[in-house]
Amino acid sequence: MAIKIMYQNSPIGSKLMKSYGMIFGVQTGLFYMLPWTQRALDKLIRLIDQEMESIGAQKMTMTCLTPAELWKKTGRWDSMGSELLKLPDRHKKMFCLGPTHEEAVTFLVSQKKLERKHLPLKLYQITRKFRDEMAPKYGLLRSREFDMKDLYTFDESVEKAEETYNSVCDAYNRLFTRLGVNFIKVEGATGVIGGTLSHEYHIPASAGQDSLFICNKCGIGVNKEVMDKDVLQTNHCKHRDCCDLKTSSGIEVGHTFLLGTKYSEPFNLHYNYVEGQKHLVEMGCFGLGVSRILQASIEHLSSDIQVVWPKLIAPYQVCIIPQKAGYKADVTWALAEQLYDQLNSIPHLRGEIVLHDKIQLSIGKRLKNMRRIGFPYAIVLGKKALEEEPLFELQSLYSNSSDMLTMPDLIDKLKNSIETIK
Amino acid sequence: MAIKIMYQNSPIGSKLMKSYGMIFGVQTGLFYMLPWTQRALDKLIRLIDQEMESIGAQKMTMTCLTPAELWKKTGRWDSMGSELLKLPDRHKKMFCLGPTHEEAVTFLVSQKKLERKHLPLKLYQITRKFRDEMAPKYGLLRSREFDMKDLYTFDESVEKAEETYNSVCDAYNRLFTRLGVNFIKVEGATGVIGGTLSHEYHIPASAGQDSLFICNKCGIGVNKEVMDKDVLQTNHCKHRDCCDLKTSSGIEVGHTFLLGTKYSEPFNLHYNYVEGQKHLVEMGCFGLGVSRILQASIEHLSSDIQVVWPKLIAPYQVCIIPQKAGYKADVTWALAEQLYDQLNSIPHLRGEIVLHDKIQLSIGKRLKNMRRIGFPYAIVLGKKALEEEPLFELQSLYSNSSDMLTMPDLIDKLKNSIETIK
Repeated sequence: MAIKIMYQNSPIGSKLMKSYGMIFGVQTGLFYMLPWTQRALDKLIRLIDQEMESIGAQKMTMTCLTPAELWKKTGRWDSMGSELLKLPDRHKKMFCLGPTHEEAVTFLVSQKKLERKHLPLKLYQITRKFRDEMAPKYGLLRSREFDMKDLYTFDESVEKAEETYNSVCDAYNRLFTRLGVNFIKVEGATGVIGGTLSHEYHIPASAGQDSLFICNKCGIGVNKEVMDKDVLQTNHCKHRDCCDLKTSSGIEVGHTFLLGTKYSEPFNLHYNYVEGQKHLVEMGCFGLGVSRILQASIEHLSSDIQVVWPKLIAPYQVCIIPQKAGYKADVTWALAEQLYDQLNSIPHLRGEIVLHDKIQLSIGKRLKNMRRIGFPYAIVLGKKALEEEPLFELQSLYSNSSDMLTMPDLIDKLKNSIETIK
Repeated sequence: MAIKIMYQNSPIGSKLMKSYGMIFGVQTGLFYMLPWTQRALDKLIRLIDQEMESIGAQKMTMTCLTPAELWKKTGRWDSMGSELLKLPDRHKKMFCLGPTHEEAVTFLVSQKKLERKHLPLKLYQITRKFRDEMAPKYGLLRSREFDMKDLYTFDESVEKAEETYNSVCDAYNRLFTRLGVNFIKVEGATGVIGGTLSHEYHIPASAGQDSLFICNKCGIGVNKEVMDKDVLQTNHCKHRDCCDLKTSSGIEVGHTFLLGTKYSEPFNLHYNYVEGQKHLVEMGCFGLGVSRILQASIEHLSSDIQVVWPKLIAPYQVCIIPQKAGYKADVTWALAEQLYDQLNSIPHLRGEIVLHDKIQLSIGKRLKNMRRIGFPYAIVLGKKALEEEPLFELQSLYSNSSDMLTMPDLIDKLKNSIETIK
């Protein structure tokens, strides 16, 4: 059932993503994910699923169409302003296209008879969200339709909600660490979502629209938006006795909120503590900009001439480049096919290998293209592959190092050094 | 990082799905997928991805918001009628919420310089679709927001397009065969999508809204909608000399269309045959009702008292039921945990095992619940698990058979008999 993935079957190529055919803008702020990027997106989603599962969160899906009456209950139908896309159905009932789902999920949980033993409850989804931005820009960084992971948590008390909050932050830390990107966690603004505590996760990148202040001594960071006037004027961090304030540009990729009872109250979401004694549920909400993480990671890791993906979610891991058409090209082609089959038979590498079949192009040209679009590894079958014991050149394109290896050594090395998500 | 999946952490519960908490209706025709069903959905999506990959199709994602001008180009902005959900953005530009994406994808491909060597091109997505049904009903069978797989194919000639058409039909056949559901393929109506050839895939179920006529002799089936008056009146199949016409109710779960140049023409989608010689591209489109397949399969396989999923996509495969709280319950609990860990360490069974921790309930009651909500297998740790060599009762809940096995035999049997999708 498996088919050999040839280069020609992969239509592959912000500035980098657009120019290399990774995304397609159909209108201002509306982008298609092209196959190359889709693969990275699917991997990122599996990675997020793993981290959510590790904290006992359960995946579900709510509808994009959210009934107006839910949003009217919390007043956000009006307070969200013109970013909320609204439409009527054929019966003139009004809906919005969910930019976030606090109302929708709180309504769901309020329809169940909740006991103390059901808590904590952690529900999340990874779905399309909508925001009618005034000025969409920067590709996937600020688009009008985007993929978001939104987790909603339900706890019996403020203390338990804080525990849950910390466990989600830990999961976010693990996620960004596994991606191999630097991240900055700063105090954030609660904004229209509301609540009592909020943090933002940023990936540092010059394209970032947020200005962050981080104290190198106490480690506490803050978004300029929410800085005290004092701090701004004195250029001093919150702690009076320590201060080594640095600024950084960041792309916001995650946001966590302790919501308190802001949503459970209007939806009358109680749980039974003991018979006849009801308590309001304490809530939290936790977002990750999924499609935004893709582009932010690329902005963060890449150079002008080379796309660098977080290795774990690179669309493919290895590109095999056999010799150019001509003298004895059939020999390296046969070797390349053999190598492809062997690598592809290793469970965690299955589907991660591409055989570059445009052999009318020179090795150098193909290698340059593969470097540009973000392959972590290339295997070149040049003249040394024609020797009695063929040698293969393994190039680590992200670190610019290379090795000449026999086929068994090459397979061993890739098997052990590549981590994938299945 | 793995956590033990306890029953309490899995909020689990058409008639069956709603009553068992598998879906939640927030409004007429708008359903949330609850965690139980979400797991089946994610598996079904992976299965579809596998079959699409096997025919060289590439996954991508288009936006739900589709610019009106694309739909006006083909006249469908008006001809789709009131099922099309329309809305303006803040600049009064009009969009529809895509019920299907022929225009959107043809526009994309028409923006690339297409050479003959790029064909066939096969692009698909699995995304939310929208249809403002006059009378939504039957849960996921006819809802207003649903998951669909839509594949679009681009070929150089009618003959090549037919080859592609047949390869997709083969993939659909494999898909339904792997799901273990009966299916009926009949000639369908091309309707508002248009084109020259169309087939429908149905899962037979009494809840189905389509009446199908199938000739037992020639095997050709037809939807009543598109039957010749002749056939309807004479009750004869298309072939004059063979006839053994039977009728069946079916739920439409797939639809295939050979589109010809209906979309490539208005979008001026040509490819370069040789320098200076241009040809219109021949297109096909192929849908699968993803969320509908979930419910149709359940309708098809289940009884009034038991949900039966296609085994391959059952939310979990095995439920371990230790003895009720009381005499020596700690012994079977420890055994159950050991069994859980061992099964969970088998790569293809990882994440498929649930340990039923509501041990205040009797074994019988828990077993009855697990049977109802569609576990393929239950392992009961009753009195025989307390013997010197513990014996475990493996119940195959779909076939109502059971075996008493030692732990090694039990693990071996499950390892070999359960197929999962990773």
